[in-house]
Amino acid sequence: MKHESSLRVRFCETDMAGHVNNTSYFIYLEEARGKFFQEVLPGQVNSVGRFILASTQCDFVSQAYFGNPLVIRSWISRIGRSSFTFTHEILVEGTKELVAKAGAVIVHFNYEKQQSEPISDELRVCLESYLKTETAERSV
Amino acid sequence: MKHESSLRVRFCETDMAGHVNNTSYFIYLEEARGKFFQEVLPGQVNSVGRFILASTQCDFVSQAYFGNPLVIRSWISRIGRSSFTFTHEILVEGTKELVAKAGAVIVHFNYEKQQSEPISDELRVCLESYLKTETAERSV
Amino acid sequence: MKHESSLRVRFCETDMAGHVNNTSYFIYLEEARGKFFQEVLPGQVNSVGRFILASTQCDFVSQAYFGNPLVIRSWISRIGRSSFTFTHEILVEGTKELVAKAGAVIVHFNYEKQQSEPISDELRVCLESYLKTETAERSV
Amino acid sequence: MKHESSLRVRFCETDMAGHVNNTSYFIYLEEARGKFFQEVLPGQVNSVGRFILASTQCDFVSQAYFGNPLVIRSWISRIGRSSFTFTHEILVEGTKELVAKAGAVIVHFNYEKQQSEPISDELRVCLESYLKTETAERSV
Repeated sequence: MKHESSLRVRFCETDMAGHVNNTSYFIYLEEARGKFFQEVLPGQVNSVGRFILASTQCDFVSQAYFGNPLVIRSWISRIGRSSFTFTHEILVEGTKELVAKAGAVIVHFNYEKQQSEPISDELRVCLESYLKTETAERSV
Repeated sequence: MKHESSLRVRFCETDMAGHVNNTSYFIYLEEARGKFFQEVLPGQVNSVGRFILASTQCDFVSQAYFGNPLVIRSWISRIGRSSFTFTHEILVEGTKELVAKAGAVIVHFNYEKQQSEPISDELRVCLESYLKTETAERSV
Repeated sequence: MKHESSLRVRFCETDMAGHVNNTSYFIYLEEARGKFFQEVLPGQVNSVGRFILASTQCDFVSQAYFGNPLVIRSWISRIGRSSFTFTHEILVEGTKELVAKAGAVIVHFNYEKQQSEPISDELRVCLESYLKTETAERSV
Repeated sequence: MKHESSLRVRFCETDMAGHVNNTSYFIYLEEARGKFFQEVLPGQVNSVGRFILASTQCDFVSQAYFGNPLVIRSWISRIGRSSFTFTHEILVEGTKELVAKAGAVIVHFNYEKQQSEPISDELRVCLESYLKTETAERSV
């Protein structure tokens, strides 16, 4: 199963090169993960204190422009002991042209103990319904 | 006396129209006020909990572009009982061409009591050294 | 008639004070005007080259937070010879609590002649269907 | 040789979690590369039309906060036929605490032919003075 969310590019998210600024893509991925957590992990909506972004990467495949709504498909490509990896595709809504492929490693964190914490069975089951492991080698 | 601060435009602060996006100007004004508080009000650096932005406005006079550092001149144009008004000029460094003229009303706020609070004599004296009242009528 | 548009706050549009950053409000107003032009002025969608933002102001009434979708109501409060004024209200969707009241002066501009240009009768008629003049005095 | 640039965090670049928002790091890397091109590649300042960002990644090591100026160290870790890779470190100025380690693949692009183009000898020589190949395995 893949999670899907839609997004409109804000005018200010473009830059003088005429397209969506590269930094804006990471805004979109953050929004997609926010919706994923909200929709997939009921009762654990406040991801601010539970999940830490350890790393993220993005391959820019084609340009995105203001006026073209985007679709972000997200799934889990790895579930570790206390961390898991998102894989995202950003597509132009309608044509489904691939704009970017990205990933993010999320660490399950306990703020009181100030350390990472194993993913609970409950959380693991939720994530597994979106699990699709990657076989192709990611560039960078 | 006028406070001055310099600023480099970030590439992402431009938009597809080719110039600095209008929303970025308010980022620059916020930065200028932050430096003003830090430099003019020693011991009251944490303006986040002390001063609330009640309103702000900006007249866009000429375009600003990536690659042209900006200078922001700030002074106090009004000191009230529990609020005061900043007037700002955004200029191109070097040519001093006027890019924008702006203002902001700041309310002195007590978070514990959750209400505005009179400006102390100490704060008033600090602000008065930057006081220059406006006579010309501001557009909008 | 009032134009309405909805908007979700992006997580990055908040700041460390815990609420929506003041500069983000101007992003929302720009988005609302973009939708207004797109929906109200058919055939004149590319407002980038036609309408210039001469000035904008915002009164911050109450805080907006991540997780609370916003509604922006927009109407025209003044139509001049070559410029017109938007008045905007930003409200919390659902409760309709007033978050901010704002305005923006738009100049109708001819880029080839590099000067402002009178509003055509066709454009004036479109704008007049959203005309609601302000009687109360706006602060700032 | 490593390129160094300094940067002040903008207040709006933080988020409600209290620290610098993860998307802001990519803004800082883009600014560092902009300065690198400006200072290291004289006569090729307009990188907008010459160099395309193919991909970027960032490992978040420790938090960055408003009020703590940052230093960004940048060097070239790979020079290919028509692309090259930046490696960046984001550090807290003063303590030099490592905040993030990042990378970016830049493609040398010919806009007229709409295809990548081999790096000229002149450009290669400039880049080689900042070349330091990576031996440690990068996470993600």
